[in-house]
Amino acid sequence: MRILVLGGDGYCGWPTALYLSRRGHDITIVDNYCRRSWDHELGAQTLTPIRPLTERVRTWQRLTGKEIEIRVGDILDYAFLAEVMQESAPEAVVHFAEQRSAPYSMIDRQHAVFSQVNNVVGTLNLLFAIKEFQPDCHLVKLGTMGEYGTPNIDIEEGFIKIQHNGREDVLPFPKQPGSFYHLSKVHDSHNIHFCCKIWGVRATDLNQGVVYGTVTDETALDEALVNRFDYDDVFGTALNRFCVQAAIDHPITVYGKGGQTRGFLDIRDTVRCIELACLNPAGRGEFRVFNQFTEQFSVLQLAEMVHVAGQRLGLNVTIDHLPDPRVEAEEHYYNAKHTKLAELGLKPHLLSESLLDSLVNIAMQHRDRVDQSLLLPRVNWRNSRNDRRAKPVVAVAAD
Amino acid sequence: MRILVLGGDGYCGWPTALYLSRRGHDITIVDNYCRRSWDHELGAQTLTPIRPLTERVRTWQRLTGKEIEIRVGDILDYAFLAEVMQESAPEAVVHFAEQRSAPYSMIDRQHAVFSQVNNVVGTLNLLFAIKEFQPDCHLVKLGTMGEYGTPNIDIEEGFIKIQHNGREDVLPFPKQPGSFYHLSKVHDSHNIHFCCKIWGVRATDLNQGVVYGTVTDETALDEALVNRFDYDDVFGTALNRFCVQAAIDHPITVYGKGGQTRGFLDIRDTVRCIELACLNPAGRGEFRVFNQFTEQFSVLQLAEMVHVAGQRLGLNVTIDHLPDPRVEAEEHYYNAKHTKLAELGLKPHLLSESLLDSLVNIAMQHRDRVDQSLLLPRVNWRNSRNDRRAKPVVAVAAD
Repeated sequence: MRILVLGGDGYCGWPTALYLSRRGHDITIVDNYCRRSWDHELGAQTLTPIRPLTERVRTWQRLTGKEIEIRVGDILDYAFLAEVMQESAPEAVVHFAEQRSAPYSMIDRQHAVFSQVNNVVGTLNLLFAIKEFQPDCHLVKLGTMGEYGTPNIDIEEGFIKIQHNGREDVLPFPKQPGSFYHLSKVHDSHNIHFCCKIWGVRATDLNQGVVYGTVTDETALDEALVNRFDYDDVFGTALNRFCVQAAIDHPITVYGKGGQTRGFLDIRDTVRCIELACLNPAGRGEFRVFNQFTEQFSVLQLAEMVHVAGQRLGLNVTIDHLPDPRVEAEEHYYNAKHTKLAELGLKPHLLSESLLDSLVNIAMQHRDRVDQSLLLPRVNWRNSRNDRRAKPVVAVAAD
Repeated sequence: MRILVLGGDGYCGWPTALYLSRRGHDITIVDNYCRRSWDHELGAQTLTPIRPLTERVRTWQRLTGKEIEIRVGDILDYAFLAEVMQESAPEAVVHFAEQRSAPYSMIDRQHAVFSQVNNVVGTLNLLFAIKEFQPDCHLVKLGTMGEYGTPNIDIEEGFIKIQHNGREDVLPFPKQPGSFYHLSKVHDSHNIHFCCKIWGVRATDLNQGVVYGTVTDETALDEALVNRFDYDDVFGTALNRFCVQAAIDHPITVYGKGGQTRGFLDIRDTVRCIELACLNPAGRGEFRVFNQFTEQFSVLQLAEMVHVAGQRLGLNVTIDHLPDPRVEAEEHYYNAKHTKLAELGLKPHLLSESLLDSLVNIAMQHRDRVDQSLLLPRVNWRNSRNDRRAKPVVAVAAD
């Protein structure tokens, strides 16, 4: 299958491109390297050293004989996107090309506006490009479980049957997103749903949970294929950050009570879910939503699991509760359905002791690359201006 | 009360500014005249000749002794908006400053992107300006009944109690908007709701129905105060267009079967609803939604009422059914609640024979200003490019 992977240099996009390539699909990566530039902006870097995309792709070809094409550009540039769409004539477009960090979107007005314009206009451009140049192409869009927020009822996959005053209808599940970033994904979902209705676009919206891990069978083949591992306060996800904190003897930073419960999945399941969506496309005009996660945990449960893993590895792990920098329920009901991808054949990699150990081991291996000034949250939802780009905290190393 | 009226030169904004000024409020109008520039773009003009805003405001002061301040600028320019917010220190901001036409947003990709970026970023800027400079100020935001679409259940005012698998919650009413414009309003609603939650903003989202009429007590005081009356295919609303068609012996153009049912209200009720919202502000952190309309009609019912009014006035009115240029249900259930503004004291001006007669009379009075090439729909939802700015249809007048 001819597949475009937009954002194919990123944390989920890169292993997805490799996985799909190994499975025999014909892959073109589109990326503008903005993820790497945000690292510069924030004074952060991935814990695992990553190589330039060109080197990554050359190595992949050397090892497997499989070619991955690269198109460098921004999907906000419609002329560029239109050219790519016509030249590569994809059967599926996997769309990871968005600003994906909630804290980044909450830094200040500029970052809020950037996140929403970047994500919404990029997706609008893509919808128009599909309609104009490749109308039968299947859009596989990354959404987020965070679109739903934490309602006091079970979360369904995209739609819910509502009975009201003696009548009923199946309607989009109500959305209560918790950051300007999450809001941008809700805006996207509404825009995509509408384009399916008016133009017959085929679309699958994958409401993904929080992804953990970094290694897949493909990225493990060579050092040049290594994937990102983000642990900083802006782009790092909870479990990765906890593992790094454990590895360097820094208290694990749980925000608030830690009862915040979310859906999680292993990066190896992310790549498989994408392929399952591509192989089983939505029908013409169908807007389909899958909840893409495998297990629910509270943040405190994750912290406790890392605590235990750290003890197994001889580390002295403590857990700190910080005031929650986000505005969110710290204790709540949470029960989200996630059966549709399983029905298509997903066999989940559940969070095991051995995986936790391997994550902490990766963190220990790259201990010398950890910048401690990036571990504590510096973006508070209650402020409209956070000095995230203020003078960095200078940690003077003892001799 | 000190009130900012953003978009105060437009069809709803201008009569609102006058009404609030007459009622003793201290009014500042903010406008960038984009509505007038869209007329140039589309080769259209209001049926009723309108004066420059400066002349409008001078006349108002001469007649009533009341001053209205004007600030010319774009709310997408945050430095400008921040200055206005600090200098005028409003207790309420009435936000009409959006691109408000569904067909305009559906012309092509550029217009879709413009409509969403303009509306979403303008509202985001306003939310940040309120948070930073005037946190107690009440945001009165114009939404639209079109955010809800046409679900097969009763439409509530913003929120609905949902019972599901033995649990229940009150959640945002699911949205099914029908154009890129309507989508922009849904995006706004989600953004505003979130800012109420994180920053304690006070907000009232007025989901307004289709407004008809042009005259209020204030605009009737002088020719220089006359309000817009749009009848063209892009900015004209159904009832206004029908009256113009009746006046010039052009068939009334009903899209499809005409069973499309919507909420409607008189412009005199619009201005009163705005004042009611201002006088009864939302609490700190409250996101309140009012459905702002007074009666439901199907498009065909409106056409038939104009048909009857035309006969009373000696006109020969016929009704045509055109293929619907929009993608929408042409027959559907529709029952939307609208009790909250009535509870605050709204006494509706229902659509009467005398009002219909007066609308047709306005159209007859300005018959010579009607451009017939603007009456038929030229923006089709099924196309991603509509040549709305193509060569105008040249109608040669007979001597």
